[in-house]
Amino acid sequence: MPIPTIYTENRKVYIIDQTLLPIEKKYIEIKDKKEMWDAIKRLKIRGAPAIGIAAAFGVWLGVRNFKGSFNEFMKRFEEVCSYLATSRPTAVNLFWAIDRMKNLISKSNTENVEELKELIFNEARNMIDEDNMVCRAIGENGVSLIKDGYSLITHCNAGGLATAMYGTALAPIYIAKERGYNIHVWVDETRPLLQGARITAFELVEADIPATLITDNMAAFVMYQGRVNMAIVGADRIAANGDTANKIGTLGLAILAKEFGVPFYVAAPISTIDLKTKEGIDIPIEERGPDEIIKGFGKQTAPSNINVYNPAFDVTPARYISGIITEKGIITPPYRENIQKLFS
Amino acid sequence: MPIPTIYTENRKVYIIDQTLLPIEKKYIEIKDKKEMWDAIKRLKIRGAPAIGIAAAFGVWLGVRNFKGSFNEFMKRFEEVCSYLATSRPTAVNLFWAIDRMKNLISKSNTENVEELKELIFNEARNMIDEDNMVCRAIGENGVSLIKDGYSLITHCNAGGLATAMYGTALAPIYIAKERGYNIHVWVDETRPLLQGARITAFELVEADIPATLITDNMAAFVMYQGRVNMAIVGADRIAANGDTANKIGTLGLAILAKEFGVPFYVAAPISTIDLKTKEGIDIPIEERGPDEIIKGFGKQTAPSNINVYNPAFDVTPARYISGIITEKGIITPPYRENIQKLFS
Repeated sequence: MPIPTIYTENRKVYIIDQTLLPIEKKYIEIKDKKEMWDAIKRLKIRGAPAIGIAAAFGVWLGVRNFKGSFNEFMKRFEEVCSYLATSRPTAVNLFWAIDRMKNLISKSNTENVEELKELIFNEARNMIDEDNMVCRAIGENGVSLIKDGYSLITHCNAGGLATAMYGTALAPIYIAKERGYNIHVWVDETRPLLQGARITAFELVEADIPATLITDNMAAFVMYQGRVNMAIVGADRIAANGDTANKIGTLGLAILAKEFGVPFYVAAPISTIDLKTKEGIDIPIEERGPDEIIKGFGKQTAPSNINVYNPAFDVTPARYISGIITEKGIITPPYRENIQKLFS
Repeated sequence: MPIPTIYTENRKVYIIDQTLLPIEKKYIEIKDKKEMWDAIKRLKIRGAPAIGIAAAFGVWLGVRNFKGSFNEFMKRFEEVCSYLATSRPTAVNLFWAIDRMKNLISKSNTENVEELKELIFNEARNMIDEDNMVCRAIGENGVSLIKDGYSLITHCNAGGLATAMYGTALAPIYIAKERGYNIHVWVDETRPLLQGARITAFELVEADIPATLITDNMAAFVMYQGRVNMAIVGADRIAANGDTANKIGTLGLAILAKEFGVPFYVAAPISTIDLKTKEGIDIPIEERGPDEIIKGFGKQTAPSNINVYNPAFDVTPARYISGIITEKGIITPPYRENIQKLFS
């Protein structure tokens, strides 16, 4: 079983503090909106779906002790939403969750403050349930591709700790484990920020799934040795033609997989597919600063005056992708046609 | 101009202390055999050719102040050689250099101690000159492949700091710079030990050659963007069929180069070609401990109980190699036949 990223118990909200990983596994109670803002801001909770859920609970935490009139409540509610939106202003799921709360309240038929608070709490809990359902469905669909005895490779963290619990790329692996399959996972450390080493490796160890950590540049050699049966990664955005933006290094892994005849799958909820993005070239790629590469983890390991190129993502053309595993099924080529079908 | 790794001036021996790179550029005088042993042991000087030259000067430093009979001298000489051999017992060039000194002495026609000391000093200096000639010849041969305006990519450090001055993979780049070519180099940081970030980036900055540091998993994306004209790497061992063992990550880079139509060259002295090794599969691959990956940057960045696979080298099959640049010319496919010709 994967471990939960965020959960409630007796109406208290707990998250695993991801800034302490992989050294310490510690759940902390988040008591108010300020603590949730801080948790999102400082990456104690990260990953698009998880941030959305965290923000939803942040809204509830911001109003739960409120006493007063409906009008005063609405003012407080709006303030809390605006405040939480400033925690990570580029995280799309943050706004999605806040908008969902606003819709909920505007469409509700009550002006009873206690009832409104209850609606908000239940909506946040629903978001955990929905995330679990989507991720489990991705897992159930993806597990059909995995055979007992398989060794898989993954990149970055598209695991449970980016969602409420099951993750996307790791969901089929968790389901395979539930079914008693004997599987093994190669984990790319994923420079520069080492999400593979810090988070995916941690998750798999916690779930008692045999895993081996490698540096990104070792993936070719383990494939060359015939030790990989399947590659599976997450996605940050999928274009209408199937081109997929994901963590830097995904493209290289996909090309190696093609060279060695290893099937290469992307696992993502259909909300990741952006029909307005026609192809990969249209996806803007965030470039980050040099220190993540020059000062890896606090210590300088390159000349301070060397130029650095640090794209956070790359684009994998659809031709390298064997299939896209979603909660609605596995999309296979031709992608443009089959993605259209899914949405029509 | 690349900077020298080791040089003599007024019969004093200086090396650049590579343990201080890339933060500090400091030449230190090595005054006796103990200091040279220590410099080799602690990687103040590293890279196969450079270690050989360092050991040769270590022999001289160990006998230069000797006063006594020929027999006493020979006893001291043997002691110094045995002592230096313990500095890095797996470094083949260390033994090559020491054997060369022993041959020199055993074939000399003098029992005059001062003359013998002079022979040893001159032999060590010759080894610098020979290394420079071999590397410059590799550079001159390799530069014929480079066009003005090229952007190259390299992996690990096969630069001047692994040899006396010019390096192997970087030699054609230094010659291109001498000729006034406008060139640019993408430098793979080369996990786990970051020789690209620490050493190659430093060398290129020092030589005023435009260079950009990337993490290894970014190479695919820069090639995808059409920003690489040629790849060039060194070699640890080349089999009789052209299969090449080099720093881990070389195989992946070669496959990406093939996928994007980027010519992929290996640059190495012919002494790297081992005719007794028939093909790559025969090359033993050193596996190193987990800490280089788990605690890569001095700080723990992965769970301490995750399995780790850490091969120091990989093998690039000859079919991915466009040519092998040696001091005797560029070897092209078919490799088995053309390597045989070179040696016959």
